[in-house]
Amino acid sequence: MPNTALLAIDWGTTTARVYRLDANGQVLDQRSQPLGISQVSEGRYAEALERLLGNWVHEPVPRLACGMIGSRQGWVEAPYVECPASLDTLASRLVHTPDGSLTIVPGLMTRDARGIPDVMRGEETQLLGAVAPDESQILTVLPGTHSKWALVDRGTVVDFATYMTGELYSVLLAHSILGRMAKPSAASNDAAFADVSFDRGVQHGLDMGGLTHDLFAARTLALTGELEPTEVEAWLSGLLIGREVRDALAWAKQYQSSSQIRIIGEYVLSQRYRRALEAAGLVTQPSPAQAAGQGLWLIARQAGLVG
Amino acid sequence: MPNTALLAIDWGTTTARVYRLDANGQVLDQRSQPLGISQVSEGRYAEALERLLGNWVHEPVPRLACGMIGSRQGWVEAPYVECPASLDTLASRLVHTPDGSLTIVPGLMTRDARGIPDVMRGEETQLLGAVAPDESQILTVLPGTHSKWALVDRGTVVDFATYMTGELYSVLLAHSILGRMAKPSAASNDAAFADVSFDRGVQHGLDMGGLTHDLFAARTLALTGELEPTEVEAWLSGLLIGREVRDALAWAKQYQSSSQIRIIGEYVLSQRYRRALEAAGLVTQPSPAQAAGQGLWLIARQAGLVG
Repeated sequence: MPNTALLAIDWGTTTARVYRLDANGQVLDQRSQPLGISQVSEGRYAEALERLLGNWVHEPVPRLACGMIGSRQGWVEAPYVECPASLDTLASRLVHTPDGSLTIVPGLMTRDARGIPDVMRGEETQLLGAVAPDESQILTVLPGTHSKWALVDRGTVVDFATYMTGELYSVLLAHSILGRMAKPSAASNDAAFADVSFDRGVQHGLDMGGLTHDLFAARTLALTGELEPTEVEAWLSGLLIGREVRDALAWAKQYQSSSQIRIIGEYVLSQRYRRALEAAGLVTQPSPAQAAGQGLWLIARQAGLVG
Repeated sequence: MPNTALLAIDWGTTTARVYRLDANGQVLDQRSQPLGISQVSEGRYAEALERLLGNWVHEPVPRLACGMIGSRQGWVEAPYVECPASLDTLASRLVHTPDGSLTIVPGLMTRDARGIPDVMRGEETQLLGAVAPDESQILTVLPGTHSKWALVDRGTVVDFATYMTGELYSVLLAHSILGRMAKPSAASNDAAFADVSFDRGVQHGLDMGGLTHDLFAARTLALTGELEPTEVEAWLSGLLIGREVRDALAWAKQYQSSSQIRIIGEYVLSQRYRRALEAAGLVTQPSPAQAAGQGLWLIARQAGLVG
């Protein structure tokens, strides 16, 4: 295995993914394992790292990780850096594990006008990987359990906001009366983004109602037969994503009024977001693949870990 | 047991409560049992009614029930009556069980400007019991798992809207990351309404943010130590109730701009709502006790079941 220059790890709550990069920052190879911090007993992180790296463990190159591994519940805490946060600042605040086997990128913190904090860990690295250092004023969304919207400007994460969309969707389906109305649909996974019920939900979400009221419509529409039990999941997904889009666009207005947005994330969920964002009148851009690997490479280079 | 004129039953999802009323509509006695429709096997309602009535089963008087017993999952379906719905209309749409042992009050349905349906069962009867037939334009709230806001005018339920506040609070605490941050507090039951964390949550809820974003603050405030783990529950309760108040006041504006509101419900939750409503600048009125019993009495009289 010649040419390895960096082992870059996106180490999250459930999964850890390692990229093997060459001296040009190209991804030569990658692997992932269910070794997220919720899967590893405290004090067993060195062992988990060895398992994750496998035969790459003998590569005499730096290892740089981002994500929940740097949280209070992780291996070693990498204190949050305040926004706006540049690539340079992030690179200067790296933290090392006591045994020197891993370097960790800190997460970011911001506060809104009311002083309410918001945090991210891992997404800052994806953002810097997905937005080139010479691009200005790029509005981005990272869909997920806790979706993040961020404004990135020339290698600096200016500000961001979190929306609990994915988690709300999961708990409502699994544990509320709305889930009791729903029947899984064959289309509910990869095709739901093209589902008319999803689009109806999006429109309802983009509308002006209050969320705890609008959620109840998943029940009443099913009760009156205006939504089939197999359509409830897609409608609810649309409602929550539509509402996120509405609320986050109001948040983004303080920074810019561009109608472009970059979606950073895995394919299926990104397609749902694309559809909802376009319904709101935005033009979406796909993100480069392996944003975390690219971001870790840029941070490593800025920190002088690689030449 | 002389003087019984009506056996009035508030028959909900988890509990059934029966009131024994005299010929003046006064409650002589009441009892409740965990015989809600989710507790009774289909086809066993007659038996459940006998258990609920106990020795009152031999009273030769009408029996009138409201609530989920009239739903599709109940004993016999009493189709929804459309709003605006008067006491007179409700009384003319009563439904009888096949064995003639019980008469059931229908629920109400309304549709908002977008055509989205909303429903209630049982609350319509509480509303008519809590607002006298000669009172005009009374704004009311019935706090609960699915809180209802309604405008009642001279014995007519003009319109209403549901907010899933209580259910959202429960599922988020039990199943989301927000619950994992929370530690039960000694104050979290009957005293939480007087808790400063509750008031902070209310203020946040009355604010302009998006709910799926604002919910995340229960995590970030705990993360930064600005909220103790024992304060998370009260803060979250405040946030959700505050948000309900904000959204429902926007809904109520279409009908009236009075600053008075009547709270119909049990003491602890009503106290929390009172505090949140007052924070929003409203003047609250307590509701008469036993609103359901009183409402059933008025409907029975209107229907000629009692003299």
